[in-house]
Amino acid sequence: MKMGLIVQKFGGTSVADVEKIQNVANRVAEEKENGNDVVVVVSAMGKTTDHLVDMAQQISTSPSKREMDMLLTTGEQVTISLLALALQQKGYDAISYTGWQAGMVTEPVHGNARILDIKTERIKKDLAEGRIVVVAGFQGLTEEGEITTLGRGGSDTTAVALAAALDADKCDIYTDVTGVYTTDPRYVKGARKLLGISYDEMLELANLGAGVLHPRAVEFAKNYGVTLEVRSSMEVERGTLIEEEISMEQNLIVRGIAFEDQITRVSIIGLDNSIASLPTIFTTLANHHINVDIIIQSGTGTDKANISFSIKSSDLAETLEVLEENKGLLNYEHIESETGLSKVSIVGAGMISNPGVAAKMFEVLAGEGIQVKMVSTSEIKVSTVVSDEQMVSAVEALHDAFELAKVAVSA
Amino acid sequence: MKMGLIVQKFGGTSVADVEKIQNVANRVAEEKENGNDVVVVVSAMGKTTDHLVDMAQQISTSPSKREMDMLLTTGEQVTISLLALALQQKGYDAISYTGWQAGMVTEPVHGNARILDIKTERIKKDLAEGRIVVVAGFQGLTEEGEITTLGRGGSDTTAVALAAALDADKCDIYTDVTGVYTTDPRYVKGARKLLGISYDEMLELANLGAGVLHPRAVEFAKNYGVTLEVRSSMEVERGTLIEEEISMEQNLIVRGIAFEDQITRVSIIGLDNSIASLPTIFTTLANHHINVDIIIQSGTGTDKANISFSIKSSDLAETLEVLEENKGLLNYEHIESETGLSKVSIVGAGMISNPGVAAKMFEVLAGEGIQVKMVSTSEIKVSTVVSDEQMVSAVEALHDAFELAKVAVSA
Repeated sequence: MKMGLIVQKFGGTSVADVEKIQNVANRVAEEKENGNDVVVVVSAMGKTTDHLVDMAQQISTSPSKREMDMLLTTGEQVTISLLALALQQKGYDAISYTGWQAGMVTEPVHGNARILDIKTERIKKDLAEGRIVVVAGFQGLTEEGEITTLGRGGSDTTAVALAAALDADKCDIYTDVTGVYTTDPRYVKGARKLLGISYDEMLELANLGAGVLHPRAVEFAKNYGVTLEVRSSMEVERGTLIEEEISMEQNLIVRGIAFEDQITRVSIIGLDNSIASLPTIFTTLANHHINVDIIIQSGTGTDKANISFSIKSSDLAETLEVLEENKGLLNYEHIESETGLSKVSIVGAGMISNPGVAAKMFEVLAGEGIQVKMVSTSEIKVSTVVSDEQMVSAVEALHDAFELAKVAVSA
Repeated sequence: MKMGLIVQKFGGTSVADVEKIQNVANRVAEEKENGNDVVVVVSAMGKTTDHLVDMAQQISTSPSKREMDMLLTTGEQVTISLLALALQQKGYDAISYTGWQAGMVTEPVHGNARILDIKTERIKKDLAEGRIVVVAGFQGLTEEGEITTLGRGGSDTTAVALAAALDADKCDIYTDVTGVYTTDPRYVKGARKLLGISYDEMLELANLGAGVLHPRAVEFAKNYGVTLEVRSSMEVERGTLIEEEISMEQNLIVRGIAFEDQITRVSIIGLDNSIASLPTIFTTLANHHINVDIIIQSGTGTDKANISFSIKSSDLAETLEVLEENKGLLNYEHIESETGLSKVSIVGAGMISNPGVAAKMFEVLAGEGIQVKMVSTSEIKVSTVVSDEQMVSAVEALHDAFELAKVAVSA
């Protein structure tokens, strides 16, 4: 590893107690001893956020987002000071900064603000003086001096944004897994850790629930060309590099297989085939915070259309209620729904130049006697909806068919 | 009560849990319903600070004051947000501010900073718009953007300083006692709550360990003419007013009796009678954070002097060690010490114009067969050191002799 500037990010489980914070200090110290400048971004300790939210909910039936930001940002502030103390105890010169002290300027939105700017003078001065800088993730300040939070995956975003603003050589995301896998190793024995993956592939996998890294942070990294590495905070092995040009495993067409159970298909039958119907349905659902994933429209060209879409099964009751309430507006005949479904997706940038990948997928599934109930494709992804019971065998068959268990020869 | 601006301060025991924070919201709402503008200053919840300190001590043998300030200021930030939520839940427009958001500018010292300035624009704007403003006590920001704390009694100081800066009509200090008493009611049955007391008297009582209000806050109030009221957060009765011109009980010469056990007298015998000896001794002790209270010098005029001083008994071992280490420098013959002592003090602004108060005190104590071992006087206070076993009977005898149990006729 050449000497440079590394941004490290440690999530809540990596700093859950005093002992784990001391372990993080060791990881930071190693990087410093390697001759690198280090900026560390941390989240709130383990269950801290839950405890704070619990108190707020005891007090308020609908807590204001502004006061929740005020409350929750104390979590990371505790971690940064304890980590700075742990580093100082090991003899390192370390200093902690809240989001606003680190110059993190956000838009004036509470609970889910976007970063507008990072004023890095203070951090740059500390780095130049040899200091390790510890920054609170997830938080920022508006130009009016209001404390904001960045929403889900906020600490990942803080780390990537800082890496971009400081022109860091690398941003290491430490987590409780050792990297990004070809598929979930808890379900598929042959799952293999990837050495490299492109931003777009990671985005598809992250959006598909691979869960190690927030899509917003990946997008930020892609836009600013920040090289990410997802790695374990407990083990020293190499993780998975995420960058534009991946130098290894180029010959793989499919990079990974993502899957998710508890999916429900909802079909609206006999819908008035007007231009307004489609936006009306999905705007109405979005207003009720119901996330719709795959959407399939059939029967265009006639005066009645059928629309099918997939949702999380936990949203079914509310979805049916919303559709029922708006029956007059939407003007449909009836609703059908099917629960007990799963989504299985193959992801890989190589698909773009390899036609027939989707066809091969369907063939493999058919060979296993698995019925495909819905399909959705993007340039680097094919998603299928199958029954819950067939999810794991679908993943295993695809993992074999696309030879993901094989280690590719490095370029 | 005329309409105006009230600053209320609630300490850690008053906001120890969710239920108590809701109770504080009720007290704040009452004041608002009375037609007043209200600014509320709160401390960290109950045991929060202890918990944070405990984690820091697990990590660091000598935690840096800067990081401790970073850590501890999260405590009040949690309370302000929860109190703002509780007020909003009751239908009030409330907003919380950290110390730095409230414009609290301090000197660049960690752990014990003094307030330099308060930029009140933001709070004034909120008050003008009818908002209840909730401010984190104990904390501020340096001009360089560093988070600082105000040290012991810091939240009292925040409240008084805000009251001064906002030109508030009154600053109410809510605590777990109902006011300032003529002496400690846990020891003396006849102890009576005072309706009023002057700043100087309160200062002497506070310094003597009456403990309800930090001396620094009293001094600040005196310098800026802020009327204080010490009152209970749990009961609705009137508390004790602290102001320059006290309108009631003027005819009392002695206003209160303070006392403190676990005192030790240390005597340095046969000290070289040079000009340098006295400063050398007390500078050396101060450098070791040993607080010296009463100091008596005898034997001046000869070439050898004796110095006696009182300390807390818990500081005895270190005091003896420091004196032994510096024996060569101080050039004394030997050290004597007497433990098991108490300090009993009478306080009252009326003493200034009533000579013979000290004489009466000694007479009362002699009448009870109590030997006085050390004496110290100021314009409004006489302190005596007696044996531990005689402390309570000394206080009772003085409380009777100076007729403190009697309610004075209002002026």
